[in-house]
Amino acid sequence: MLEKLKEQVYRANMMLVEHNLIIFTWGNVSGIDRESGLFVIKPSGVEYSDLKPSDLPVVDLNGNVVEGSLKPSSDTPTHAELYRRFPNIGGITHTHSKWATCFAQAGRPILPYGTTHADYFDGTIPCTRKMTPEEIASDYELNTGRVIVETFRDIDPDRMHAVLVHSHAPFTWGKDAVSSVEAAVVLEQVAMMALHTELLQLNLAAGGTPMQEELLRKHFDRKHGPNAYYGQTKK
Amino acid sequence: MLEKLKEQVYRANMMLVEHNLIIFTWGNVSGIDRESGLFVIKPSGVEYSDLKPSDLPVVDLNGNVVEGSLKPSSDTPTHAELYRRFPNIGGITHTHSKWATCFAQAGRPILPYGTTHADYFDGTIPCTRKMTPEEIASDYELNTGRVIVETFRDIDPDRMHAVLVHSHAPFTWGKDAVSSVEAAVVLEQVAMMALHTELLQLNLAAGGTPMQEELLRKHFDRKHGPNAYYGQTKK
Amino acid sequence: MLEKLKEQVYRANMMLVEHNLIIFTWGNVSGIDRESGLFVIKPSGVEYSDLKPSDLPVVDLNGNVVEGSLKPSSDTPTHAELYRRFPNIGGITHTHSKWATCFAQAGRPILPYGTTHADYFDGTIPCTRKMTPEEIASDYELNTGRVIVETFRDIDPDRMHAVLVHSHAPFTWGKDAVSSVEAAVVLEQVAMMALHTELLQLNLAAGGTPMQEELLRKHFDRKHGPNAYYGQTKK
Amino acid sequence: MLEKLKEQVYRANMMLVEHNLIIFTWGNVSGIDRESGLFVIKPSGVEYSDLKPSDLPVVDLNGNVVEGSLKPSSDTPTHAELYRRFPNIGGITHTHSKWATCFAQAGRPILPYGTTHADYFDGTIPCTRKMTPEEIASDYELNTGRVIVETFRDIDPDRMHAVLVHSHAPFTWGKDAVSSVEAAVVLEQVAMMALHTELLQLNLAAGGTPMQEELLRKHFDRKHGPNAYYGQTKK
Repeated sequence: MLEKLKEQVYRANMMLVEHNLIIFTWGNVSGIDRESGLFVIKPSGVEYSDLKPSDLPVVDLNGNVVEGSLKPSSDTPTHAELYRRFPNIGGITHTHSKWATCFAQAGRPILPYGTTHADYFDGTIPCTRKMTPEEIASDYELNTGRVIVETFRDIDPDRMHAVLVHSHAPFTWGKDAVSSVEAAVVLEQVAMMALHTELLQLNLAAGGTPMQEELLRKHFDRKHGPNAYYGQTKK
Repeated sequence: MLEKLKEQVYRANMMLVEHNLIIFTWGNVSGIDRESGLFVIKPSGVEYSDLKPSDLPVVDLNGNVVEGSLKPSSDTPTHAELYRRFPNIGGITHTHSKWATCFAQAGRPILPYGTTHADYFDGTIPCTRKMTPEEIASDYELNTGRVIVETFRDIDPDRMHAVLVHSHAPFTWGKDAVSSVEAAVVLEQVAMMALHTELLQLNLAAGGTPMQEELLRKHFDRKHGPNAYYGQTKK
Repeated sequence: MLEKLKEQVYRANMMLVEHNLIIFTWGNVSGIDRESGLFVIKPSGVEYSDLKPSDLPVVDLNGNVVEGSLKPSSDTPTHAELYRRFPNIGGITHTHSKWATCFAQAGRPILPYGTTHADYFDGTIPCTRKMTPEEIASDYELNTGRVIVETFRDIDPDRMHAVLVHSHAPFTWGKDAVSSVEAAVVLEQVAMMALHTELLQLNLAAGGTPMQEELLRKHFDRKHGPNAYYGQTKK
Repeated sequence: MLEKLKEQVYRANMMLVEHNLIIFTWGNVSGIDRESGLFVIKPSGVEYSDLKPSDLPVVDLNGNVVEGSLKPSSDTPTHAELYRRFPNIGGITHTHSKWATCFAQAGRPILPYGTTHADYFDGTIPCTRKMTPEEIASDYELNTGRVIVETFRDIDPDRMHAVLVHSHAPFTWGKDAVSSVEAAVVLEQVAMMALHTELLQLNLAAGGTPMQEELLRKHFDRKHGPNAYYGQTKK
C-alpha cells in the first residue's frame, strides 16, 4: 500500500545523508497521504545504507502501525501530532543537524538576518519552551508535538516551516516529504550564518586592524599591475 | 546564437557546485558578449544537475529575453544594470556563499587583513547601504544593481571585483564568467579568514594558557628525540 | 589467532578514516577477547591505507605482544590499564578529533546541553586533571590510563563512554571496538555543538539586529506569495 | 635531471590538493638535492590538474633556473633563502591554508595547547615581524625569506618546522618535500584547535547552562535504560 509515497519518503530520507544532516541512524522523514489519513515514516534505528522503500512502516494518525514489520521511528507520535494539528502539511523532517541544534540547545530562536532566511522562512524561526518534568515523564514524544503546536498558537505553520525544540533539535515540514528535507537543509545553512552574523554584529562590529597599505599594494600589483610577474608569460 | 558563450557560462555555473558555493538552485552566473550587447545567464530555479548549455537564455541589456524558452534568473535586472554601468566587466556571479553572506548580513565591509585578500581585491570589499522601502517595493532587482553602482561611486570596479549587498549576499565579477566565479571562490575564503582574524585580534589577542612544558617535551621527544619510540623501527 | 576480532578491530580502525576523525597515522582502536584476556590493537605509525587485519598485534593485559611482528600503538599501556580496570568494556578508541580535542586542550569537561548528548552520554563528559611531571617522566602511557581511572572514581564507565585527557585528546569505549568508534564520532559532534551552544548562551544570548521587515516580506513573497516570480512557470 | 626528485616534489604538491590546503593555483612545494645544491619547485600559476613532474623547473641556490621552460613559483627567492640559511632542511611548503593564515593575519604566534602540537612542533610556532616598506618595495620575496631567518635567530629550524609570515601565511619545512607538506597539514589542524581552545579558555571557561536533568535521564534511558524503546527489538 502507498508504494509511491514510500518511494518518495525513502528518497527524502536518503537526502539527509546526501546533505550531511545526519550520522548513523539519526533523523527521520515522514510523508502523509491526506486522503487515507495514513503516513509513511523511517523505521527506528535502521542504517540508511540498509534502508529500502518497502521497509517503511505505514502508520495511522493515532500512531498505530497499519502495515510493515519494523517499528516506526520513536519520534512517530510527534509526527502524528503535527499531522493532526497542521492540516496542510504533507511531510515532516527531524534531524540533529549541527548549527540548528546549537540554537535549540541554547533555547534561542533564529532571527532573520538576510534574504537567504527570508527566501524560505517568514520571520523568526521559533524555539519551544522547555518541557515540564511531567511532559517528559510520560508520552514524551506526543508532548514534544504538543509543545510545538503550542509554540505555533500565533504563528502560521503554512508560512513558517521550521521549529527548534528546546534542548533538543529542529523539526521542519512542507507540502511533502522532499520539501520538508529542503527546509531542513536551508535551516542548517541559515543557522550557521545567523550565529556568525551575530558574532560580527555583536563582537566584531568595529573590525580589526587592516594590513599595511604597502603590502596590499605589492601583492595586488604583482598579480594585476602593469609589471605583474605572477604566473606564466602569456604567449 | 552565442553557443560558445553559453558553453562557457554553463561551465562557470557548474563551478559554483564544484566549489560548494551553492545548494539547490541558488546562485547564478552570467557572461556578456560586448559586441552584440547580449548576455547569457542561468535560468531561474533550475537544478544544476539538470542544466544544459542550450537551456541558458540570451538577454539584452534592457533585460529582454532574445532567445530561449526558460525564464532567466530573477536577478537578471541586477546583472543588466551592472553590465550597463561597469563597461569593462565580462561576467557576473551571485551566490549566497556562507562566510561572505555573514558579512553582508552584518552590513559589514571586509577589511584587508592579508595577502590572500590583496592578491585579488585592491582594498576593502565594500558593503552597500540598506535599500529604502521604496527601492524594495518596486523594481527591486534593478534597484539592487543601482545601489551597487552607487556604492562604487568612488571605487573602480576594474580593481574591486566584489560587493556585499546589505542583508543579502555577495555579487562578484571579472573579465568573463569563469573569472567572476573565481572571485566568488576567493571572496568566500577571504571572508572566512577575515572573521577569524578579527576574533584573534579583538577577543583572543593575548592568547591562552599553554600546556605544561614537561608534556610538550615528552610528546615531542617520544616522536623525534634520540629515544623516540613512536612508529615501527626503521630497518 | 583471534582472526574474527582482528577483522572487527580492523574495520573499526578504518571507520576513523571514513568519519574524518584522524589524519595520517593518528588514532588507534583496540578490541578485547575477555575470555582469553587478549586484545588486538592498531600497530604504531602505520598508514591506514596500508593496514591489513593480519597486521594487528595481539597483546595481553600486561601489554606484552603475544602475536604479530609489528609494534603495537604507543598508547597500548593506556588501553591495557582501561581494560584491566573497566571490566565490562570490549573496545577502546583514541583520536585527536578536532572539537573534542579543543575541550581537552582547554582542560574543560563537556556539559550536557541537549538530547544528542543525552542519547549517548549519561551526564557531563569528564576531563582528567593535569598529570604531574613524575607521571609524565616515566610510564607516561600507563599513567595516562591511571589518571583516567582516577577521574572515574565516582563515575560509572558503563554509563559514561568517553573522557578527555587534559592537554591531550579524547578516549572513548564501548561494548566492542565498533561501538567505541561510534562513541568517538558522537563525541566529536557533541563537542562541536557544545562549544557553539556556549557561544550562543554566553556571548550572543540577546541576538543581533534583524533585517528590515520590508526586505523579509519582499523575498518571502517573490518566492511564495500570490505573485511569486522566482523559478519557471508551472505548466 | 633530478627526475626522482621531480617525481617526489610533484607528489608533494599534489598532497596540497588532497589535504584541502589550497584552491586554484595557490601554494607551492619544493625539494632540494643537497649534493648538487639544486632544488625543484612548482611552476608559477599552473593548475594542479595540469601539472606533470617534468613541468617542474630546477633552480640553483641563487634562484636561477637551471632546467625547465616554465617560470618557477614567484616565491622561489623565499625558498632559496631558506635553503641557504637552514642547511639541514630538504623540502619547503608554502600555502594560504585557512586557519594558519588567520593567525598570520592577526600577527599572532601559535602557543602550544596540547599534545597534537607537541607531537610535531617543539614549542610556540613563531610569527615574523611586519616587513618594512623598503623590504616590501624591492626584493620582496627574498626579504620574506630574510625576515623568516631573522625570526629564527634563537629558534632551531631543525626542531621547529613552521613559521607564520605576518599578514601573509605559513611556510613549513622538513627533511624532504613530503614531510614539509605533512608539517603544513598538521599546522592547519593545530591552528584550528588553538583558536577554539583559546575561545574556550578565555570566553567560555565557565561553561553555560546545562539541559534539564529530567530530559537527560529520559533520552539516555529511552536508548540505554532497562525499558529502552529506540531501535528494532533484538531477536
